[in-house]
Amino acid sequence: MSIVNGVDVDKLISTIKAIKENPDIANFQFRANTEWINGGHSRTKIQSFYGAGAEDESRKQPFVIDGDEPPILLGNNVGPNAVETVLSALASCLAVGFVYNAAARGINIKSLTFSLEGYIDLHGFLGLSDEIRPGYKEIRVNYKVESDAPREKLEELCEYVQKTSPVLDIITNKVPVVVNME
Amino acid sequence: MSIVNGVDVDKLISTIKAIKENPDIANFQFRANTEWINGGHSRTKIQSFYGAGAEDESRKQPFVIDGDEPPILLGNNVGPNAVETVLSALASCLAVGFVYNAAARGINIKSLTFSLEGYIDLHGFLGLSDEIRPGYKEIRVNYKVESDAPREKLEELCEYVQKTSPVLDIITNKVPVVVNME
Repeated sequence: MSIVNGVDVDKLISTIKAIKENPDIANFQFRANTEWINGGHSRTKIQSFYGAGAEDESRKQPFVIDGDEPPILLGNNVGPNAVETVLSALASCLAVGFVYNAAARGINIKSLTFSLEGYIDLHGFLGLSDEIRPGYKEIRVNYKVESDAPREKLEELCEYVQKTSPVLDIITNKVPVVVNME
Repeated sequence: MSIVNGVDVDKLISTIKAIKENPDIANFQFRANTEWINGGHSRTKIQSFYGAGAEDESRKQPFVIDGDEPPILLGNNVGPNAVETVLSALASCLAVGFVYNAAARGINIKSLTFSLEGYIDLHGFLGLSDEIRPGYKEIRVNYKVESDAPREKLEELCEYVQKTSPVLDIITNKVPVVVNME
């Protein structure tokens, strides 16, 4: 068994082989259930998903993510707010992409950190302007990588990860969202 | 003091008034810092932000969000994965938008829940296809609201929230992301 960066490379290769033989197993459906608690506070539970042709049963308990606003935005700081959580998802996605693909290329990563900034004008959210978008105007991501690999290999990897990162794609491109109120 | 749905409506009105008088205070910068731990596992800390013309100091401790993959995607289930966290951010954003705007309109919300599904084909993430996008193909959101307000008012509110939700905008439209590797 070959472990690089904590990733089982043999399993990674066999997963890719399995998908090449049976493309349908690459279709995943992820899920979340959210309950509003009070004011700006809501709580999301994440547990089951469908993937690789079956319901996943590996999680015995749901993961819980609280969302809230800070007092200046009329909340009680029970959790980060929704746009902060987006930054977390983006960094987590880039980290997985970087580390898995480094493992596949035999690149050992000693450390990997990200700092992210998101710029937003709240006129949109507050309904005070039709011209100002509600979401981020721009997000900046700064990586720091420690590795013995040559700088050029790390830059190539960074480029590749940007092409294949699900959350980067979700943020930089358009995803159709169907909203239904029961 | 008028509290509706746990939201201080007087404070909401005075916040909106303050922004109308001084538009610059609506510019916020949110931040996250992420450290890769091992394999698919990374940890994000969220604490400071800039907004309303100053550095916020309301949070004495950072919020921590772990991200990981399930075993079928070569992780150890330490946390939800990045695209699941995106669903959480979306629901949390819609909840805040719904509840705050309901409060501003004098609509009492008894309960509000969301179930979300995101559909993704992992050929993109795994670099097995240039034609299949890495991110979600589609997200579906289902709301349930309990309120004494007439159905028509709740539908209007739901429509309005979709126009002003920061995370819905981030997902359904394009946000520029600047990535820099130090």
